[in-house]
Amino acid sequence: MNAFPDRVTLVEVGPRDGLQNEAARIDVDAKVALVDALTAAGHTRIEVGAFVSPKWVPQMADTDAVFARIRRAPGVRYSALVPNLAGLDRAAVSDVSDIAVFAAASETFSRKNINKSIDESLNEYAAVVRAARDADMHVRAYLSTAFGCPFEGAVDQSRVVDLTRRLLDMGADEVAVSDTIGIAHPGQVRDLTTALAAVLPIEHIALHFHDTRGTALVNVYAGLEGGVRVFDSAAGGLGGCPYAPGAAGNLATEDLLFMLDGLGITTGVDRLKVAAASRALAPSIGHPLPSRLLQADEATRR
Amino acid sequence: MNAFPDRVTLVEVGPRDGLQNEAARIDVDAKVALVDALTAAGHTRIEVGAFVSPKWVPQMADTDAVFARIRRAPGVRYSALVPNLAGLDRAAVSDVSDIAVFAAASETFSRKNINKSIDESLNEYAAVVRAARDADMHVRAYLSTAFGCPFEGAVDQSRVVDLTRRLLDMGADEVAVSDTIGIAHPGQVRDLTTALAAVLPIEHIALHFHDTRGTALVNVYAGLEGGVRVFDSAAGGLGGCPYAPGAAGNLATEDLLFMLDGLGITTGVDRLKVAAASRALAPSIGHPLPSRLLQADEATRR
Repeated sequence: MNAFPDRVTLVEVGPRDGLQNEAARIDVDAKVALVDALTAAGHTRIEVGAFVSPKWVPQMADTDAVFARIRRAPGVRYSALVPNLAGLDRAAVSDVSDIAVFAAASETFSRKNINKSIDESLNEYAAVVRAARDADMHVRAYLSTAFGCPFEGAVDQSRVVDLTRRLLDMGADEVAVSDTIGIAHPGQVRDLTTALAAVLPIEHIALHFHDTRGTALVNVYAGLEGGVRVFDSAAGGLGGCPYAPGAAGNLATEDLLFMLDGLGITTGVDRLKVAAASRALAPSIGHPLPSRLLQADEATRR
Repeated sequence: MNAFPDRVTLVEVGPRDGLQNEAARIDVDAKVALVDALTAAGHTRIEVGAFVSPKWVPQMADTDAVFARIRRAPGVRYSALVPNLAGLDRAAVSDVSDIAVFAAASETFSRKNINKSIDESLNEYAAVVRAARDADMHVRAYLSTAFGCPFEGAVDQSRVVDLTRRLLDMGADEVAVSDTIGIAHPGQVRDLTTALAAVLPIEHIALHFHDTRGTALVNVYAGLEGGVRVFDSAAGGLGGCPYAPGAAGNLATEDLLFMLDGLGITTGVDRLKVAAASRALAPSIGHPLPSRLLQADEATRR
């Protein structure tokens, strides 16, 4: 077990992974206000949007407009999902220096999500990553369904390690090992991070948890013990209503900060400012945000 | 850090701590059905009710009737809260062999909750514990607000250790160190369990978490690492609606089992049977049960 670190880095994915999974359409003004508020809260990495087909992900159709209007603070990295070279061109036009590709650890999920086999997607991403690195961009690769697949069930740990290695080998600066359906438990996190750290540089691994079964926080805790230092979260727990079909909100940034602050681990992110950003967005979302801390605060105020 | 154990013991507190904090009145039939279903799920310790004044806790007024009708399985311990010698007499009449007294770690909370100072309550409990032990009863003592008080805020760790010691010294078999308002974070759990284990036998310590801020699971994880082997939980997360004032549900037994099952830690309790018991009770409660696992299952079924 690693000692807990003095500092970890949060990657705020609310504007992209969060909003993408919300039914309500959020306009550009609200998205820009959210990103600016998250910048003001002290985040150093914010995933702003996705340069994907608006046919497939209508919520991300205005990513160019959002990038044009956010106020970029010095030292803060604003990223976008990029599925192919066309998307990379759009990222470059929007002056985006941080991109992310998204692979899966499950064949069925890969085919259903991006209509490609895992190998086909990795071949395409290799070209994207090469071009991005040539343009001095920072590249993150998501590895989704790394802890379980909604179609295939269990996912083999050695396959996750192998795919993580392939993504790093092709030039990704970081692989976000992702629990897409929120089914991971901390024993799995402990085992997987141990296996990853044994053969790969752990400082290039991030963990991305959804809180579907309430395990996201304890999974971060196990990840911290496993030596991981980069964690994803979304303001308010955006990305899923607890009472809606397919509920699968991201780990709420506020909830994560409550724990990290308590552990004395510095993030540079102000929990109250994140909560204020969530509250400002909440009326547009159409359901109570899943963050437990927000709910506890609301209950206290009544 | 302790290695994780092969087995831990759950104390199911839904019928008492859970229902006591629900606004809906639950009738004797439903309470008996709940306790019997929890017995069938494999629990070995179930807190059934409280022999307290019906004026103060109307939901527990029918505890005698519930005890008269539950089917007691061999080897299962059915307990009741007992505030004084009169309550102990009622427990004896109901053939209850496991009782619990409830002290607080905060003066203000003690006065508001039981109208006594901490010392006054401990003096009264000393007589109760002595009489209970003379009658060969098993005695648990709750130490509430051990991680924070709604009125005083932070609670001094050395006071918690001292009060735990006093409760054990007066003859309690077990002290349930309790996060009454769900404000503990795992750093605090780690520090407190370390401090307790340094001076007291950790096998006589249980941990009792509420999930108000979503930290209950990770607090159990930290407690496991600290060597604790007895944890409280309530079917469905009874005891607080996430969208109600003062939301403060207990850690849901299903959610705890999802984690413990994943970690390969045996409890003897069947998660699916607990979930079925929660679902059977849910229509009487008047709001969705807070268990994240129940919610995820519901979402999957739709």
